[in-house]
Amino acid sequence: MSQSAPEYALAAHPANMGDARSSTRPVRVTPTLIIGGHDIVVAAGPCSVEGYDMLLASARHVQSAGGTLLRGGAFKPRTSPYAFQGLGEEGLLLLAAVREQTGMPIVTEVMDTRQVGRVAQIADVMQVGARNMQNFPLLAELGRSGKPVLLKRGASARISELLLAAEYIMANGNERVILCERGIRTFETITRNTLDISAIPVLKAETHLPVIVDPSHAGGRADLVLPLALAAIAAGADGLIVEVHPDPSVARSDADQQLTFAQFSDLMHSISLIATASNRSLRPQMPQLPPSVAPSIAAAASAESSVAASSHDTRRRAVAAA
Amino acid sequence: MSQSAPEYALAAHPANMGDARSSTRPVRVTPTLIIGGHDIVVAAGPCSVEGYDMLLASARHVQSAGGTLLRGGAFKPRTSPYAFQGLGEEGLLLLAAVREQTGMPIVTEVMDTRQVGRVAQIADVMQVGARNMQNFPLLAELGRSGKPVLLKRGASARISELLLAAEYIMANGNERVILCERGIRTFETITRNTLDISAIPVLKAETHLPVIVDPSHAGGRADLVLPLALAAIAAGADGLIVEVHPDPSVARSDADQQLTFAQFSDLMHSISLIATASNRSLRPQMPQLPPSVAPSIAAAASAESSVAASSHDTRRRAVAAA
Amino acid sequence: MSQSAPEYALAAHPANMGDARSSTRPVRVTPTLIIGGHDIVVAAGPCSVEGYDMLLASARHVQSAGGTLLRGGAFKPRTSPYAFQGLGEEGLLLLAAVREQTGMPIVTEVMDTRQVGRVAQIADVMQVGARNMQNFPLLAELGRSGKPVLLKRGASARISELLLAAEYIMANGNERVILCERGIRTFETITRNTLDISAIPVLKAETHLPVIVDPSHAGGRADLVLPLALAAIAAGADGLIVEVHPDPSVARSDADQQLTFAQFSDLMHSISLIATASNRSLRPQMPQLPPSVAPSIAAAASAESSVAASSHDTRRRAVAAA
Amino acid sequence: MSQSAPEYALAAHPANMGDARSSTRPVRVTPTLIIGGHDIVVAAGPCSVEGYDMLLASARHVQSAGGTLLRGGAFKPRTSPYAFQGLGEEGLLLLAAVREQTGMPIVTEVMDTRQVGRVAQIADVMQVGARNMQNFPLLAELGRSGKPVLLKRGASARISELLLAAEYIMANGNERVILCERGIRTFETITRNTLDISAIPVLKAETHLPVIVDPSHAGGRADLVLPLALAAIAAGADGLIVEVHPDPSVARSDADQQLTFAQFSDLMHSISLIATASNRSLRPQMPQLPPSVAPSIAAAASAESSVAASSHDTRRRAVAAA
Repeated sequence: MSQSAPEYALAAHPANMGDARSSTRPVRVTPTLIIGGHDIVVAAGPCSVEGYDMLLASARHVQSAGGTLLRGGAFKPRTSPYAFQGLGEEGLLLLAAVREQTGMPIVTEVMDTRQVGRVAQIADVMQVGARNMQNFPLLAELGRSGKPVLLKRGASARISELLLAAEYIMANGNERVILCERGIRTFETITRNTLDISAIPVLKAETHLPVIVDPSHAGGRADLVLPLALAAIAAGADGLIVEVHPDPSVARSDADQQLTFAQFSDLMHSISLIATASNRSLRPQMPQLPPSVAPSIAAAASAESSVAASSHDTRRRAVAAA
Repeated sequence: MSQSAPEYALAAHPANMGDARSSTRPVRVTPTLIIGGHDIVVAAGPCSVEGYDMLLASARHVQSAGGTLLRGGAFKPRTSPYAFQGLGEEGLLLLAAVREQTGMPIVTEVMDTRQVGRVAQIADVMQVGARNMQNFPLLAELGRSGKPVLLKRGASARISELLLAAEYIMANGNERVILCERGIRTFETITRNTLDISAIPVLKAETHLPVIVDPSHAGGRADLVLPLALAAIAAGADGLIVEVHPDPSVARSDADQQLTFAQFSDLMHSISLIATASNRSLRPQMPQLPPSVAPSIAAAASAESSVAASSHDTRRRAVAAA
Repeated sequence: MSQSAPEYALAAHPANMGDARSSTRPVRVTPTLIIGGHDIVVAAGPCSVEGYDMLLASARHVQSAGGTLLRGGAFKPRTSPYAFQGLGEEGLLLLAAVREQTGMPIVTEVMDTRQVGRVAQIADVMQVGARNMQNFPLLAELGRSGKPVLLKRGASARISELLLAAEYIMANGNERVILCERGIRTFETITRNTLDISAIPVLKAETHLPVIVDPSHAGGRADLVLPLALAAIAAGADGLIVEVHPDPSVARSDADQQLTFAQFSDLMHSISLIATASNRSLRPQMPQLPPSVAPSIAAAASAESSVAASSHDTRRRAVAAA
Repeated sequence: MSQSAPEYALAAHPANMGDARSSTRPVRVTPTLIIGGHDIVVAAGPCSVEGYDMLLASARHVQSAGGTLLRGGAFKPRTSPYAFQGLGEEGLLLLAAVREQTGMPIVTEVMDTRQVGRVAQIADVMQVGARNMQNFPLLAELGRSGKPVLLKRGASARISELLLAAEYIMANGNERVILCERGIRTFETITRNTLDISAIPVLKAETHLPVIVDPSHAGGRADLVLPLALAAIAAGADGLIVEVHPDPSVARSDADQQLTFAQFSDLMHSISLIATASNRSLRPQMPQLPPSVAPSIAAAASAESSVAASSHDTRRRAVAAA
């Protein structure tokens, strides 16, 4: 325990530095996927869902390289109101469609209390972005939703505040919280943020929650994703969330920091070496699930799967109609 | 213009440092109250609305000392889920009741897109707290609400980001935005935040929006409110928002930084001297409205609806009907 | 006292917020100049001493506008080794020559323990720059020198660390320490630093030392010097140190932040109004010394030695002899 | 190259991210020890040299565990003038004596331009502490000394400023500069500093200089040294500098962050696994050198070695007499 430990319920958990890993309580995402266990989990995919083809291609590549969770933004928090704001509902449907094709569970961001119900119907993991880490009504609503929550640390949030944000979700009934370090704001300008690598062991020691790292936003530069990812795994992170795009140069958001497919493959290979050296492993690939497993989005899913068989282009019509 | 001026629409406004004050476009709050004009406007009141008596006493004192806007939190963003979260809807009704008694317009915080409609029925000015400065759905909803918005700078927001947050509101149709500097997060620990006093002239130069300062949250210490307030006025702020409580020692939130009535009177006196030295003045007191006592929430609500019938403003009918 | 007051000897001084000003113990610089008394003291002059003419012109203008201390850098700490490093010893002689002409005492920076003895022969106030705030051997040497020390806060120094730096000087026998807030480093990039305006009342409350402000380095922009200076005086600063240059556009250092003579005159006028409103005053002008023009460095040096012979202060003899 | 690369001579070096390691130009410390080559170099030892026994015991343990450079502070920069300031000259002699016994080269801090000549007689590597990163006269003097320099990044120094500080040394004739990331100051308070792990790949890409990491000062907590050290190696650091003490609980400085011997052994074992996974290795142990190899300290060395044979206690008398 730190000398400045805040007074939150999490602190009462019998986790400690000496035996941190064993005390982490994994979060189950699907029957075959847990985060916070022995295996390292990598979520990857494009910053924004831009269309069906690019999303499916990304998912297939991520999966083939050993990633087990597909990330993609449908609702995008953008600093400027004039920047691309995401495809919204259409983006959600595209994510669901690609899950049907690949069996990969989905993590996507939710920004508005009014969207929580709808996003919870589609997403396997609900992401809270850094800007919303202290959006308390949103946290409370996610607490009531019951779906696993990936909670990103705010860019200027102290660790104690991140834990209290997690507590908002848990105090509202949802214990399936995954913490995410994604860089903090400092005076340094050569990187987008400064990855607080020490947050990993501190969070592992202070709580029983899984801790993953986002090396893409932390550095804001594609060339830094690999070294930051390796550092994160070496420091004990339970996983990563990484931005990958078929062609980063034309990405509609975060073009500077998304990896190409080849770079992502290299990353996964290097990570596996560090994982092995740490007596851990990358999570083995999931078996492909049979189609139509999500009854709550049954209509969209069946419309999608029938269309998907014929054409990618007509698929988009079905999505728009859903 | 700064050499690093961001490319936002606000920057296109013909404001400039040499003639900053004259280029500020005031925001009208009520027929008799504008912010950003020649007069300095002081909003004051308790951090949280804790009850009718304390709120009315605070309002009367603030008004007698020259304050023209009543602040009070009904929905409170608290770092811990176990801290007092505000009285919510009851707090809104108390604010409305005290406005009936005193004629003081109200500024109060809104945190959730689902609350915007309801808070807009009550509040004269809708406040966006520092933690929600980049809650983009909330900003967009406030843009559509039409009510004046007091937008606080996030604790780690660059000025360019504050302006883009304002742009979210304005791009959605609402030009009545008031900017508020309330301290930024730095490495210094002896104060709660660090008041960025330079933000005042920079914002005055970069935009035509009024700029006010919150010396209570900036320092987080009652003993610093006076010097920070004086500095803000000397640096050209259009006004202040100050926490005042009948007995800060028993306040349910922010006990360390709220002023007593006597301290607030001293503050107003000292501010008026600086204002005069700057060839400006504190806004003259509004005429006192006829008293009509409302001893309970229920009575306040019914009193409100009867008074509202003869009001110049149909807003209050909507409040009673909601 | 703050709840997090460090354990340094300064904290034992019976200063307190309620009666801060009266408890400040002024530092005497010359028989007719004290800092930390009722009057506000303004030090001004060029960032770097670039030559005799520009320095004399600056001094005469500063003096005519009400400034009472001449600043000018002979040894310049520059981030790049390829930037102008100051005139060194020649700069010191020019400062001494201009003092002879104008009667203005001099404040100049010392960076190296080996220079302390020499700079102490010339300077009336020895300046420690922000980068050297924790150069402990330098602080100790200045403690032994006996000359008044203007100690600038480091760009990332906590207030408690600034006070411990002052303690290094005082613990070595020199109580004549003047603290200077000059902006801290934050994430904001639109200004060079962020002026920590709250440092003024905090330092006044925590210590009995005079506190002055450097609005030139704090903002790094000429257009911000005036509002920051006004804020500093309103917040209770004992004085200012301001960069003024005959033609800032050709300055060899800090071109963006130096004031023209006209801007400096305006500044002094505006400050006097705020000072009066605060029941204080700008230090009245010193009597002008009889002119004795020294058109070159050599002439200045010889003029110096002749004048020094009749001086009340043997210091100047040492200067001429060195 | 970053888009905001400063214009320093280092940037002209043909290093780049894609081939960073191969482009690092190693710094030779002794005939058998280079930093920045294929092998990872670990410097370790006590924060302060407190006496002969503790220093020798530390050196022997560090060496047996695979460390190849002995660290130990003789001149200590301490925030408070009342804290232990180091043994000074006596500390230097103890370092030299232990080198005689073990053959380990020494890295120790120099703080004052007047000490450079003396410290250069003893130290194999001269350390510039974070507080002195912009002590330009010191950097210039070290440039003239010719000894390898370990340059620590200032707690609030941008990477561009660290490189310009290195440039001060190199521009004065000394190209043997080793950069050290040791944590930067942020708003986070649960750790002493925030290790900027991204500085490693950025520095490797921007320069040809070796980069090492100080995990002890970065976190300020013994429990964080291991994960931070592992992260540093995984991110590509050329080495580490670690604080180790026979009994940290009684250390005269930095008691919270020094490792026990057992912890250091564990650290070295874990590092070797990560190094191997990265296709690198810990530097193999040096062969024990024969005694008396440093002619410039011949007198002290011979006095020491003769005394050392008989008694540790009498040794200190010899040191004091030297």
